[in-house]
Amino acid sequence: MTAPFSSLAQFRTVLTGLPGPDLAARDAARVRDGQLTKPPGALGRLEDVAIWLAGWQGSDRPCADAPQIVVFAGNHGVAAQGVSAFPPEVTVQMVANFRAGGAAINQLARTFGAAMSVQALDLDRPTADFTEGPAMSEAEVVAALATGWNAVDPAADLLVVGEMGIGNTTSAAAIVAAILGGAPEDWVGRGTGVDDAGLALKARVVARGLVANPGAVGDPLEALRCLGGREIAAMVGAIARARVERVAVILDGFICSAAALVLARAFEAGLDHCLAGHVSAETAHGRLLAALGKEPLLSLGLRLGEGSGAALALGVVQGAVACHSGMATFAEAGVSGA
Amino acid sequence: MTAPFSSLAQFRTVLTGLPGPDLAARDAARVRDGQLTKPPGALGRLEDVAIWLAGWQGSDRPCADAPQIVVFAGNHGVAAQGVSAFPPEVTVQMVANFRAGGAAINQLARTFGAAMSVQALDLDRPTADFTEGPAMSEAEVVAALATGWNAVDPAADLLVVGEMGIGNTTSAAAIVAAILGGAPEDWVGRGTGVDDAGLALKARVVARGLVANPGAVGDPLEALRCLGGREIAAMVGAIARARVERVAVILDGFICSAAALVLARAFEAGLDHCLAGHVSAETAHGRLLAALGKEPLLSLGLRLGEGSGAALALGVVQGAVACHSGMATFAEAGVSGA
Repeated sequence: MTAPFSSLAQFRTVLTGLPGPDLAARDAARVRDGQLTKPPGALGRLEDVAIWLAGWQGSDRPCADAPQIVVFAGNHGVAAQGVSAFPPEVTVQMVANFRAGGAAINQLARTFGAAMSVQALDLDRPTADFTEGPAMSEAEVVAALATGWNAVDPAADLLVVGEMGIGNTTSAAAIVAAILGGAPEDWVGRGTGVDDAGLALKARVVARGLVANPGAVGDPLEALRCLGGREIAAMVGAIARARVERVAVILDGFICSAAALVLARAFEAGLDHCLAGHVSAETAHGRLLAALGKEPLLSLGLRLGEGSGAALALGVVQGAVACHSGMATFAEAGVSGA
Repeated sequence: MTAPFSSLAQFRTVLTGLPGPDLAARDAARVRDGQLTKPPGALGRLEDVAIWLAGWQGSDRPCADAPQIVVFAGNHGVAAQGVSAFPPEVTVQMVANFRAGGAAINQLARTFGAAMSVQALDLDRPTADFTEGPAMSEAEVVAALATGWNAVDPAADLLVVGEMGIGNTTSAAAIVAAILGGAPEDWVGRGTGVDDAGLALKARVVARGLVANPGAVGDPLEALRCLGGREIAAMVGAIARARVERVAVILDGFICSAAALVLARAFEAGLDHCLAGHVSAETAHGRLLAALGKEPLLSLGLRLGEGSGAALALGVVQGAVACHSGMATFAEAGVSGA
């Protein structure tokens, strides 16, 4: 599928009329849940997850054995401001590591049987430094959105989008600050592990980015163009495409959630097909998830990105689906009810 | 292996001189963790889990692909007091469901590649009603401990012990109250789903059990004998055997944690080989885990038992181990450090 947009205006149009879940399948799954050999509600959030997924898959017995993980990588002009503990060349080095199978996300993809691919977006052409003006032209952000859009496999039963990009927690914090408001200090975090001085620098850089890009404030797609990275735009495109295909998405950490925020504010109920896989150790992630109205499945102090927290949550979703779709009913098992 | 005890006194002796972890392997795993292609600490608790497991497995690259799940089932005389929302015959019916593969734990075992077995302990011979005196004779509790002891596969790389037994949240609450003190109301919960009146009844039943069994108060193994069920004693035996074999254990919910408490108070550092898989929706479980000094991996509102929460946590542990043991180092991948 070629992406059905070649401008931000066309992308905005695509975002109208996106499908909702199959309510009949969801209701049928809820009925089935009540018949399974367990006390009502005894599987807690696993039951909610399975019923939610039933709606997006259009089946009262959802599955989770063909998940897709796509890791998007981009380079950031703002990295020149010294906002990361790691040098910018690590982005391309880590892409090689993803391709060789040596990164955390590779191991998690293998563990949970996910098909994994890597999309490196113009790594030799970093975005412009957003403290001096827009990070991307319209053509650039649209190309990145399209890369994400085209990366999604409509046959996947779940999607995880991950990212790699030295400097991208700063970019994500700027996007979130532009959309949600609040002080830059509320949204920056330690990323790969900057010290207190690095944290203060990140807040100053975000503040300068907001001043340099007044059109970004309050406009989600302009915030993405002016303050984003290509990998963040690609995540936006992928999550939107997943909605078109009714593929449910497990959100990862702060950067992925910043991409999700763009969609949440660009169209109504835009994240109903998304589940928060985890809350990360990046300070502002919990606050961002609260703004998105998402309760994370996991809270294990991860702050790696790559899609790692969402991939780990795949295991929980697979457990939920296995119970829902595989358990015997009281009648089938001859078990007495309450 | 025949259990090396035929009395509670001999079991107490077994509990002296149990092994600790392999500190050299644990230290080597910590060194390896620092070399992997991620910012230091970026995998959060996954790193701690992998390093902990390395110690128990005696290898700096632990594995988690041969886990064992054993579900123990027992019937409780105290069920006659009406403490459960389900009738006592459900225990034997659910054992049939486990054997036919229709229960939640079967689906979770399949999902995470665990070998699962079921041990039904004298279901036609419920324990005595503990409101009238000891639930078990010494011979009975020792036989149950031995069943658990013998059920453990020393070749497993992880162990989950689960349970089924109508009435057993009441039994577990009584054991915990006898060992930790506090009011019965602090330790009872809704179990399979009793209403407010059922909850109050459970507290009264626990209080009567403590009065009827004064020797149980403050003596972990006597608490187990007088207030326990056979499946709880079997879990105690299995967790102890796992320690002997240096097989790490993932603890499940309130009942499993009550069994773990018996060991924690019966020998020093008795639960160092155990990880709390989750905190359940059973009200007192969080408080009990705090008393055990255990931070749960998951908090998803489960309250099913069967080992289900621990089995779900297997996925997290498998993810942790896959990352730790499979990732490339900075040197291997040619990635620049911070």
